[in-house]
Amino acid sequence: MISEKMKEIMRSGSAIRAMFEEGKRLAQIYGKENVYDFSLGNPSVPAPESVKKAIKEIVDKTDSLTLHGYMTNNGYQSTREVVANNLNKRFNGGFSAENIVMTVGAAGGLNVALKAIVNAGEEVVVIAPYFGEYNNYIANVDGKVTVVPPNPPTFQPNMTAFEKAINKNTKAVIINTPNNPTGVIYGEETLREMSAILKRKSEEYSSVIYLISDEPYRELAYDGEKAPFIPDFYPNTIIGYSYSKSLSLPGERIGYLAIPSKADGFEELVSACNVATRILGFVNAPSLQQLVVEKCIDEKTDVSAYDRNRQLLYAALTEYGFECVRPQGAFYMFVKCPIEESEFVAKAKSYNLLLVGGKSFGCEGYVRIAYCVSYDMIEASLPSFKKLADEIFKK
Amino acid sequence: MISEKMKEIMRSGSAIRAMFEEGKRLAQIYGKENVYDFSLGNPSVPAPESVKKAIKEIVDKTDSLTLHGYMTNNGYQSTREVVANNLNKRFNGGFSAENIVMTVGAAGGLNVALKAIVNAGEEVVVIAPYFGEYNNYIANVDGKVTVVPPNPPTFQPNMTAFEKAINKNTKAVIINTPNNPTGVIYGEETLREMSAILKRKSEEYSSVIYLISDEPYRELAYDGEKAPFIPDFYPNTIIGYSYSKSLSLPGERIGYLAIPSKADGFEELVSACNVATRILGFVNAPSLQQLVVEKCIDEKTDVSAYDRNRQLLYAALTEYGFECVRPQGAFYMFVKCPIEESEFVAKAKSYNLLLVGGKSFGCEGYVRIAYCVSYDMIEASLPSFKKLADEIFKK
Repeated sequence: MISEKMKEIMRSGSAIRAMFEEGKRLAQIYGKENVYDFSLGNPSVPAPESVKKAIKEIVDKTDSLTLHGYMTNNGYQSTREVVANNLNKRFNGGFSAENIVMTVGAAGGLNVALKAIVNAGEEVVVIAPYFGEYNNYIANVDGKVTVVPPNPPTFQPNMTAFEKAINKNTKAVIINTPNNPTGVIYGEETLREMSAILKRKSEEYSSVIYLISDEPYRELAYDGEKAPFIPDFYPNTIIGYSYSKSLSLPGERIGYLAIPSKADGFEELVSACNVATRILGFVNAPSLQQLVVEKCIDEKTDVSAYDRNRQLLYAALTEYGFECVRPQGAFYMFVKCPIEESEFVAKAKSYNLLLVGGKSFGCEGYVRIAYCVSYDMIEASLPSFKKLADEIFKK
Repeated sequence: MISEKMKEIMRSGSAIRAMFEEGKRLAQIYGKENVYDFSLGNPSVPAPESVKKAIKEIVDKTDSLTLHGYMTNNGYQSTREVVANNLNKRFNGGFSAENIVMTVGAAGGLNVALKAIVNAGEEVVVIAPYFGEYNNYIANVDGKVTVVPPNPPTFQPNMTAFEKAINKNTKAVIINTPNNPTGVIYGEETLREMSAILKRKSEEYSSVIYLISDEPYRELAYDGEKAPFIPDFYPNTIIGYSYSKSLSLPGERIGYLAIPSKADGFEELVSACNVATRILGFVNAPSLQQLVVEKCIDEKTDVSAYDRNRQLLYAALTEYGFECVRPQGAFYMFVKCPIEESEFVAKAKSYNLLLVGGKSFGCEGYVRIAYCVSYDMIEASLPSFKKLADEIFKK
């Protein structure tokens, strides 16, 4: 009844979503307070208070037909101007409204970008570990996923492996820094080398290779770290952004694509993204939330809350004997499994610790811990992590 | 730089969206009040006042993390229950939350349904005239569009032609009643015959053929007419609904799919739609608007306003000599071109009358007039329609 491709996707499933559902099930059995659900990247910091104020002001002051009506598929002109100016203020991007396409979250934006550029059979390079949904997004446009193998323990991409992954059939590369699932930020050196390789390869093959930068975690960086601004290195960049984490609005599905004017085929590319937004069925980013972004663009989420979680959890887990790259951003830790992955995930679950196996991220032998949860929950979970460590390391 | 498929789509373009953009351009030149833009199905009746009240109450009373957070991909359980109960109250559908998948509008829902069921190369039947975006939605899943030719002047589908369009490769049929662009409602007799044909053909080919019913205009029916409830005739129905028109929320992107439990492969089908919502990048329907639907489900848009428009415009245009099927629902009129279509569209535009050619709807020789505009604008436009008629008919 359902399509063969869909059957295959359902068989492989989303380990993240499955664990999220499992968490809800276990919470009903053991009580919410006794289940430590680290499965999903659902922010634990509420939206800034100004979001609530903005929504109420917007509905009070905006005419209903304007507020809830159709606009141009790429979004309200005023919202795109505000987004562009904000980027210029922070990064010297030289953006205007014409460079911005408002999207249904970053997931929507990535699908729009891929739809705009990828021909069936063309390759899209991803760097493991990576968000497993990229596989599905690339498959949606009949593209081919090419995986650069993981490079532990730092998880900064290995440049030799990266170069080997690029060929004349490569249409795009997706990067994600701060990274889900490792929390690693790709350094300036990494990005400079990556750009040099892409430029060299584009020239060698007389092709255009777009670098799609998936940046929902841009603002979540710790210890004074900053995620470099990709167009500074490589003009053929398409930034996919989301307010899911920075304004804690994941359920509202609001984000944007930003495309620098110096990108090859800029005008055609922006038009194609506009059209892709329409034909993929998004039509436009939710209108009220576009206006919320316009009003709340300078708001920041409380990064310090995630940072406290990070420090507590990282210190405890490494003390218990687990190995983990120290996360610099996002709200994930990527812990090495001391035993076989699925066995470790199952054992953790027996302590009501819900973790997602690295296999879902193209990197077997690890688990992702999403620490975007309450500090109290992390504190409460530590004895269980300790028991898990004791059971594994001391037997 | 952009994909070949996208180039093709951009070449063919959306006449609707192009005319909408043209309207905004002309309004800047001639003044908004002198441009009669009948291009877009953007409701002219504001959202019910209760929507504003609901939004403010929801943001005041709902915890931010619940209100703006991720939920299960198919939507809040509570919202799906309210939608199901509302359907049961009106149609005896026997629905529960399990039958409902909340979607990013009907456009999102249709893409989800097609992704769930269509294999590359399988055929999806549409009945002309039809919303041209269906071509793109079907192409998104590499399906093949099979068009049942238009059946003027009533535009009730011709059953012989419909039967001929179904073959062993047919996976789905999309219908849209009340219809965009004709305003015609498919009668009970039509739907009964259509169902009988689909049942017979399914049996003949031992296949499952889904009937996707695109119903954004369900509530917009005039003269006491009612759009029949499709699952009453055919169990393998997937209803795609949107609150774009009934609550005047097109920009917010909120709708649902409803799948009857008696549909073949029901459980697998619902799961597939859930997964498709995720992997297509929608992730979930915008969270705040789901809660708005929950609170405002019994609200009705002011159909009488559209009805006044319809009566005024239909009476005037037929009096001027134009031919048009009397619309029973939606907010469109489909007028026969007295001269060649593109020439007629251009001539109308020279009077600042912005109409969309029937070619976009698979039915050349007609224009669609979206009368979801102010009554005043229709009144003001009549002298221009009159002059257009005089120029054409009297020369």
